[in-house]
Amino acid sequence: MQIRNVRKIEPEKTVVMPGVTMRVAISAREGAPHFAMRYFEVAPGQATADHSHEWEHEVYVAKGRGEAMSEGKWRPIEAGDTVFVPPNERHQFKNTGAEPLEFICVVPHTD
Amino acid sequence: MQIRNVRKIEPEKTVVMPGVTMRVAISAREGAPHFAMRYFEVAPGQATADHSHEWEHEVYVAKGRGEAMSEGKWRPIEAGDTVFVPPNERHQFKNTGAEPLEFICVVPHTD
Repeated sequence: MQIRNVRKIEPEKTVVMPGVTMRVAISAREGAPHFAMRYFEVAPGQATADHSHEWEHEVYVAKGRGEAMSEGKWRPIEAGDTVFVPPNERHQFKNTGAEPLEFICVVPHTD
Repeated sequence: MQIRNVRKIEPEKTVVMPGVTMRVAISAREGAPHFAMRYFEVAPGQATADHSHEWEHEVYVAKGRGEAMSEGKWRPIEAGDTVFVPPNERHQFKNTGAEPLEFICVVPHTD
């Protein structure tokens, strides 16, 4: 069993969107056989990439508020919301609040 | 895209541990191809089952505090902690605080 607080995980250096940090909590590196749990923090006014891909997202909003985009249409999200992004759907997450928007995002291993 | 707040999801009736409720946020029912996101709430003094199984758990503690057991050994957990339970490891989650212990638990589809 691995127990790690998200605050003690070093952010990845490969996230290129301004104001967005990603911490990899559980992944193939720790022996996870099927999927990875990442923790995102989006600064006020900032957003994740507007994109789509072949794999799904399963998201839990831990803190803050914002909007989630699906195929160009925006809907509000807040702490306590779960979000399912199906494969190949265009999506984006934006922080519209004054505090950081923080969420868990689980993805399948793609390699 | 499906957006559902955990507070608006009806608890499952099949969770048999006293003081434990499970809400299924994202699953095969919603078209999730690989894994399911469930939201557990454990009342103060209560615990999930002491068990093991062939599939892994990826957990994020949303609220509260407690202890996680791995092969008979207990360690503290609190909000913000992520927990990886590898396949076939004996495990249990216990609420040792005064408030509900609430966590996300992601599991692969087993059928």
